[in-house]
Amino acid sequence: MDLQDKKVVLHDMSLRDGMHAKRHQISLEQMADIATGLDEAGMPLIEVTHGDGLGGASVNYGFPAHSDEEYLQAVVPRMKQAKISALLLPGIGTVDHLKMARDCGVSTIRVATHCTEADVSQQHIGLAAKLGLDTVGFLMMAHMATPEKLLEQARLMVDYGANCIYVTDSAGYMLPAEVSQKIGLLRAELPVALGFHGHHNLGLGIANSLAAIEAGATRIDGSVAGLGAGAGNTPLEVLCAVLSRMGADTGIDLYRIMDVAEDLVVPIMDQPIRVDRDALTLGYAGVYSSFLLFAKRAEAKYGVSARDILVELGRRGTVGGQEDMIEDLALTMAKQQGLK
Amino acid sequence: MDLQDKKVVLHDMSLRDGMHAKRHQISLEQMADIATGLDEAGMPLIEVTHGDGLGGASVNYGFPAHSDEEYLQAVVPRMKQAKISALLLPGIGTVDHLKMARDCGVSTIRVATHCTEADVSQQHIGLAAKLGLDTVGFLMMAHMATPEKLLEQARLMVDYGANCIYVTDSAGYMLPAEVSQKIGLLRAELPVALGFHGHHNLGLGIANSLAAIEAGATRIDGSVAGLGAGAGNTPLEVLCAVLSRMGADTGIDLYRIMDVAEDLVVPIMDQPIRVDRDALTLGYAGVYSSFLLFAKRAEAKYGVSARDILVELGRRGTVGGQEDMIEDLALTMAKQQGLK
Repeated sequence: MDLQDKKVVLHDMSLRDGMHAKRHQISLEQMADIATGLDEAGMPLIEVTHGDGLGGASVNYGFPAHSDEEYLQAVVPRMKQAKISALLLPGIGTVDHLKMARDCGVSTIRVATHCTEADVSQQHIGLAAKLGLDTVGFLMMAHMATPEKLLEQARLMVDYGANCIYVTDSAGYMLPAEVSQKIGLLRAELPVALGFHGHHNLGLGIANSLAAIEAGATRIDGSVAGLGAGAGNTPLEVLCAVLSRMGADTGIDLYRIMDVAEDLVVPIMDQPIRVDRDALTLGYAGVYSSFLLFAKRAEAKYGVSARDILVELGRRGTVGGQEDMIEDLALTMAKQQGLK
Repeated sequence: MDLQDKKVVLHDMSLRDGMHAKRHQISLEQMADIATGLDEAGMPLIEVTHGDGLGGASVNYGFPAHSDEEYLQAVVPRMKQAKISALLLPGIGTVDHLKMARDCGVSTIRVATHCTEADVSQQHIGLAAKLGLDTVGFLMMAHMATPEKLLEQARLMVDYGANCIYVTDSAGYMLPAEVSQKIGLLRAELPVALGFHGHHNLGLGIANSLAAIEAGATRIDGSVAGLGAGAGNTPLEVLCAVLSRMGADTGIDLYRIMDVAEDLVVPIMDQPIRVDRDALTLGYAGVYSSFLLFAKRAEAKYGVSARDILVELGRRGTVGGQEDMIEDLALTMAKQQGLK
């Protein structure tokens, strides 16, 4: 793979996906310090939003220490070169949230949907594009759709106005060959920029990012020090080191971003970010993290291995919101295994 | 990459490379518990030796809680299916150590040298082969030799009697393409089994192992929970999950090895195994870990960045034992940079 002088735009998630790992309790000062450090290191794009996107503050998704507006107002004016992005999940974030983010100086809006539900993004992508924002369609749990289905969904987002489409490995399930195949098809068929967002559940965040770049993605997400839920995101300072070794052009000062990771991000972690048993299980099964608790409860009740339940849920393509099926599945498996 | 039904022999390093991370203070009970867990999970090969190999117990390399003989006697008789290996570095371990290991029931001897010094392995490889042991030549810091040089050195070890040759990425510096190239050349030219030993400094332990398997390696080293110095080794339970997803045949029960990692190995860690700043620096520069302290001292004295010093040492191919050159280099760099 020859990445010599290849331009790659890195996008930091530590202040958005990292909000999950911090149960949304990052202080304004921490947020501003980390963003400033990233800005000085040359990071071109930094996402600042509730972990579940604009408007996520709620009983369901967790109340953050500060509102999206407060975080954005604390960060945006301090940036010398970095642009700030906000994530928006239709159904959680609204057009008013989007306008608020624009008014705060956000330059990139990423509208995220499940990989087969791009049609719910029309209004928000349309508005973001109309407002002249860098508008990204973000297809989550992308391992759950075939390349052809992803392409169909990506086309919808492009038609709505997106100028960039992301393949998002929300579960940290994808293997490099799958990343290559999916990004490769989108690259061949779409006239817009492509991005890849990886999680590290199978220890493949770096390798998948390289596969994505090779297949034509030019934007790559990661988190400084990997800060994110579970196994975390692709660790961005490690990816920077690898890209530097390969001669790619990220515009980032490697030592500075290493120092942001070690001196600013690691010290605020509530626990080490690592591929622990739960994170590995979720990545292996390819399921929503919300399934884990239900599967463990079903294991306690029916004696069927929670891991077997999760793998079967992954095989069946069960999606978020279908958690009530988990107990039914566990009961069926228990009967098959002679446990009930 | 198609690994369906491909046989891969995994080799656990947690009780040898892991000795570094534990400053050689693993108790006999911990060692026996972890080895028993690995045996029950189906791990075919487990290395049990001082971190620096047989005879490592010393002021220089650290005194372990117990002797190699005590560790081996605590582990070998408990194994139901796993074979035990011992590492031997000529100059540290002797033929008497080798015979002791054989007498304790070790079935595999791995004779390790710097990648350009295979000629010092003749006596030990010859003896191990003569004793009928599975005899492995282990070429360390393999990123510091060209593929052709590695082949030449591997041929020496094969001529001495090795039935398996390892490409060992001691510094965690190699990128997948380099692994493919080096293993590929050895596979094309040598009549023996090949192995790969990876470290996780650049977050590429899993990806490099996959590249090695694709290029023809059939033995792959890793450590449960990554237990090893610095960023640790390729995390073995994560590699197992990935290989399982790809359909490879490792003979290992994935859930059991995940449980060994989480329930037995993580609890004995003195600190989390992660790609911290120092580990990333070493992997990026491709130098011996012993250089780190010298470079930091030189930074304090001459004002030249320790990281720049290490990268330059890597570029020059400086090897262990040349630590006295570090101060000279720092002084030269300080003059060039107008600091002195």
